Amino acid sequence: MAEKELLTLDGHLSEYSYVGGYLPTQADFVLLKSGHIPSDPPHSLPSVRRWAAHMASFSASELEALPQLKDGCKIDEQLSNLVKNNLNMEKKEAPKNAGEQKKGAQNSKGKSGKFVLKTPKGTRDYNPAEMAVRRKVFNTIYSVFHMHGAVEIETPVFELKEVLTGKYGEDSKLIYDLEDQGGEILSLRYDLTVPFARYVAMNKITNIKRYHVARVYRRDNPAMTRGRYREFYQCDFDIAGQYEAMLPDAECVQLVHQVLSKLDLGEYTIKINHRKILDGVFGACGVPAEKFRPICSAVDKLDKSPWEEVRKEMVDEKGLDPSVADTIGEYVKLSGREELIEKLENDERLKGSAAAQAGFADLKLLFEYSKALGCDTYLVFDMGLARGLDYYTGVIYEAVLKAGQEGGEEGTVGSVAGGGRYDQLVGMFDPKKKTVPCVGVSFGIERLFAIQERKDKAQTDKIRATQTEVFVASACKGMLMERLKLLGTLHTAGIKAESSYKNNPKLLNQLQYAEDNGIPMVVLIGESEVQEGVVKVRNTSSREEVTVKRDELTTVIKQRLTVNL
Amino acid sequence: MAEKELLTLDGHLSEYSYVGGYLPTQADFVLLKSGHIPSDPPHSLPSVRRWAAHMASFSASELEALPQLKDGCKIDEQLSNLVKNNLNMEKKEAPKNAGEQKKGAQNSKGKSGKFVLKTPKGTRDYNPAEMAVRRKVFNTIYSVFHMHGAVEIETPVFELKEVLTGKYGEDSKLIYDLEDQGGEILSLRYDLTVPFARYVAMNKITNIKRYHVARVYRRDNPAMTRGRYREFYQCDFDIAGQYEAMLPDAECVQLVHQVLSKLDLGEYTIKINHRKILDGVFGACGVPAEKFRPICSAVDKLDKSPWEEVRKEMVDEKGLDPSVADTIGEYVKLSGREELIEKLENDERLKGSAAAQAGFADLKLLFEYSKALGCDTYLVFDMGLARGLDYYTGVIYEAVLKAGQEGGEEGTVGSVAGGGRYDQLVGMFDPKKKTVPCVGVSFGIERLFAIQERKDKAQTDKIRATQTEVFVASACKGMLMERLKLLGTLHTAGIKAESSYKNNPKLLNQLQYAEDNGIPMVVLIGESEVQEGVVKVRNTSSREEVTVKRDELTTVIKQRLTVNL
Repeated sequence: MAEKELLTLDGHLSEYSYVGGYLPTQADFVLLKSGHIPSDPPHSLPSVRRWAAHMASFSASELEALPQLKDGCKIDEQLSNLVKNNLNMEKKEAPKNAGEQKKGAQNSKGKSGKFVLKTPKGTRDYNPAEMAVRRKVFNTIYSVFHMHGAVEIETPVFELKEVLTGKYGEDSKLIYDLEDQGGEILSLRYDLTVPFARYVAMNKITNIKRYHVARVYRRDNPAMTRGRYREFYQCDFDIAGQYEAMLPDAECVQLVHQVLSKLDLGEYTIKINHRKILDGVFGACGVPAEKFRPICSAVDKLDKSPWEEVRKEMVDEKGLDPSVADTIGEYVKLSGREELIEKLENDERLKGSAAAQAGFADLKLLFEYSKALGCDTYLVFDMGLARGLDYYTGVIYEAVLKAGQEGGEEGTVGSVAGGGRYDQLVGMFDPKKKTVPCVGVSFGIERLFAIQERKDKAQTDKIRATQTEVFVASACKGMLMERLKLLGTLHTAGIKAESSYKNNPKLLNQLQYAEDNGIPMVVLIGESEVQEGVVKVRNTSSREEVTVKRDELTTVIKQRLTVNL
Repeated sequence: MAEKELLTLDGHLSEYSYVGGYLPTQADFVLLKSGHIPSDPPHSLPSVRRWAAHMASFSASELEALPQLKDGCKIDEQLSNLVKNNLNMEKKEAPKNAGEQKKGAQNSKGKSGKFVLKTPKGTRDYNPAEMAVRRKVFNTIYSVFHMHGAVEIETPVFELKEVLTGKYGEDSKLIYDLEDQGGEILSLRYDLTVPFARYVAMNKITNIKRYHVARVYRRDNPAMTRGRYREFYQCDFDIAGQYEAMLPDAECVQLVHQVLSKLDLGEYTIKINHRKILDGVFGACGVPAEKFRPICSAVDKLDKSPWEEVRKEMVDEKGLDPSVADTIGEYVKLSGREELIEKLENDERLKGSAAAQAGFADLKLLFEYSKALGCDTYLVFDMGLARGLDYYTGVIYEAVLKAGQEGGEEGTVGSVAGGGRYDQLVGMFDPKKKTVPCVGVSFGIERLFAIQERKDKAQTDKIRATQTEVFVASACKGMLMERLKLLGTLHTAGIKAESSYKNNPKLLNQLQYAEDNGIPMVVLIGESEVQEGVVKVRNTSSREEVTVKRDELTTVIKQRLTVNL
């Protein structure tokens, strides 16, 4: 199957459980055996992966027993052709009239009595191996947050709809609303920043350094290949309070550097820019003030589109004078470090712009503080960085992993963290418009997960989904009660221990289980051990066994665990 | 104010931000100063607490400047009377017609431009101190889950509505639906058990031991005093798979014991019973089969209501013969241990009931295994335990903290964990109705948080909301860059360190901050220290100071941290 057809299939399977809709049919079987499906479908086809893994769980006889695909099933034409060529279709009788047709459709659904075995579009389950990767990434990030003395807060998954209204511009259409079931009108949170501002205003907080890790919801067109979901984690760190200029800002940049260096996912750069510099450039180039935001959001597209397209949007869609656009083009292509700031400070056009000069002064301070904090070498002053959100008022930044690091299929990673200063948002919630200046950063955690997963797959030392330290095994029959007693003893001593749920499991199976699951030690017990008041302790990897008195067991195990750490 | 009026106020404030609705008015001020509001409102009045804390953040001049309460504000009559007696009301002009009235109402809302500063009904924010308590409780529970080799999964917060349909009986009306914005019809999850069953069926999993900690949603009447919210955490541990009878069940009971003993929140009992025993009793007493579930759910109320009320429900509402109800009454009052099982095995009525006998055999095995696992002393066979959910098919259990442990205001705690065996639920999702037997337990985590919080408050050793180990302080002016360098050095060495955001903070304020926040060490730097290449390390509690060379700083700090652990 060509790549394009696989993509079509992936799209179809993101909406339906199976090729033929919500029920498995011969169409799935045929497609699976067609040789068109890669044996380990790439991560760029998440729904094909899900489907293939699910189909693999059918036994041969189950596959053969699957019903025929009914003609008229909702199935993409491209796929349909492909499948039809390989398959007998069961002709459905043409319904006699529209009414009956509807009834027929309902019946076919009702009769089957089957459930839709999928998660909602744009969402996914996380299996144990994936969760283990996520825990690892989260713990690294938490450790950096704690390094900075940040506290944690949590807010509800939904807010009163009014709280979200007027905060996201045209993206408001992507907000999930709850059904009006009587009572308040609610919406699922779209990000963690607006609930944070609501929290700060509601509790009249004047300063706080907090983190918040939680899922947010956007009815966006999911592009799961690029880690874009409708339900996804955000991992936010923000500092609210009236402080010395640029000190909290420098701390956020330092924190981005610390998280990415600790995650060790490859080289990265932290692009910085300043809303006041952008506004200064727009003003100096002759953009009318009411077009600052629209032109800014055009500049924001520079990381995905070439200048020509961005220029076209400015001129054709946003009615900018072509010569003004060209002058802007000269600026937004620039990137560099302190020397570029100095050069622009003396730029003829920007010399007179108070906004631009204020921005330059901030960035110089940011470079200076970053040097003291030991993270300045990662900074790049990028005049093309604009950030989409309207509410930024000062410095903005975005961390990008350098391209070509994560191999083939996924293309470039792009931004993995971004943020900036927003000094007016809290004021929008205060009865007296009293605001609290804020600066923060949000990590694109789903992308970081995806990169970490790929990195782990490339390594031999897999992350374990469990933390079990000891497997308690029977060396002979009739040892169940003894195994339970040993589990009780080990657990009481704080040792993580499992055993088989079978009455009389086979020894080899038990040892194999310990090996497959990376459990470092096995405690073996048989009749002779019971009589002598001992057990055998076996090292899973070296297979070496020693005999240990039962009352010394937990001490011995703890010693061995400490040595291995 | 009488308790009843405070409760009314709490109800009002759970819907509105302020006494007068969504805007602060003189009514809030008057009420606050009336002497009727306790200075530290009890946890049983969460909304009064929230309101009082919020009002405390107003300055005296702000309070005086609050507008008058307008007549006609939506306010409870009881409150209104109370407030009116103490306060001048601003008479609103009667609107001339209905149309204008509506417009007027809209205007008053629009003109104010104020946001509703509250979280949705039945939900709450968690502040840093509360989050620290939660992390502590979660980490204890996770550690026990890991002790058993459980893996973690995560599922989306919403499911296709069909997935939830037909699983919760009459409680289905409590499900939150999402608005139909085109695309799929979605609902917020009601518990974690149904998504787990969907996950197991969808991935054709034959066995898994997993935990899942996440929030679930119920449009219930919130009773925040008793820890009942509309959004709340569930903390589930389940074992799916075809195993030796009662072994996974015994593990669940053991796990409940381990979690509660590790949390150390007071004495507890684990009540057990069996659905087959209940069915056997109902059958033997002459309850018609179709009334088994309704009668079971009447029995379920025995922990809140006296037998007389339950009997009334059986007879009056559910049409049971009074003599049958009386016979049931004799059984469901019974509780004991193995000796009660043995007695009932030979009971004249139950001798012939295959269901009851199968249940007794299971419970005997459970006692036996629990003895080996070291947790049998916590078990009580309670014939009155029924559990609400329809899907249980075997053993059921519920852990209760013994009454009178948590002092005054909240009354009895009741159940803090519950669960049981449900062997048919996965089959409801399988195209071929192939099922996977399951047993599990869910912890009532919000209650556990509340108890832990009260316990912590009673202790002098508070839980810290941050983990900061070192505060970097200036001993004189002009030390900002030196402090940043020290922060960089400490962080690179993995030491959690903070400093002031002020350019030239006062020394005493810095030392006070370290003390207030329980930061164990302060690193002090001044001009002379810079010249000599040293810093002072100060122990916050003993106030003892030593001089340390800068290149030895991180080693010294790490040593001191290890000693203190």
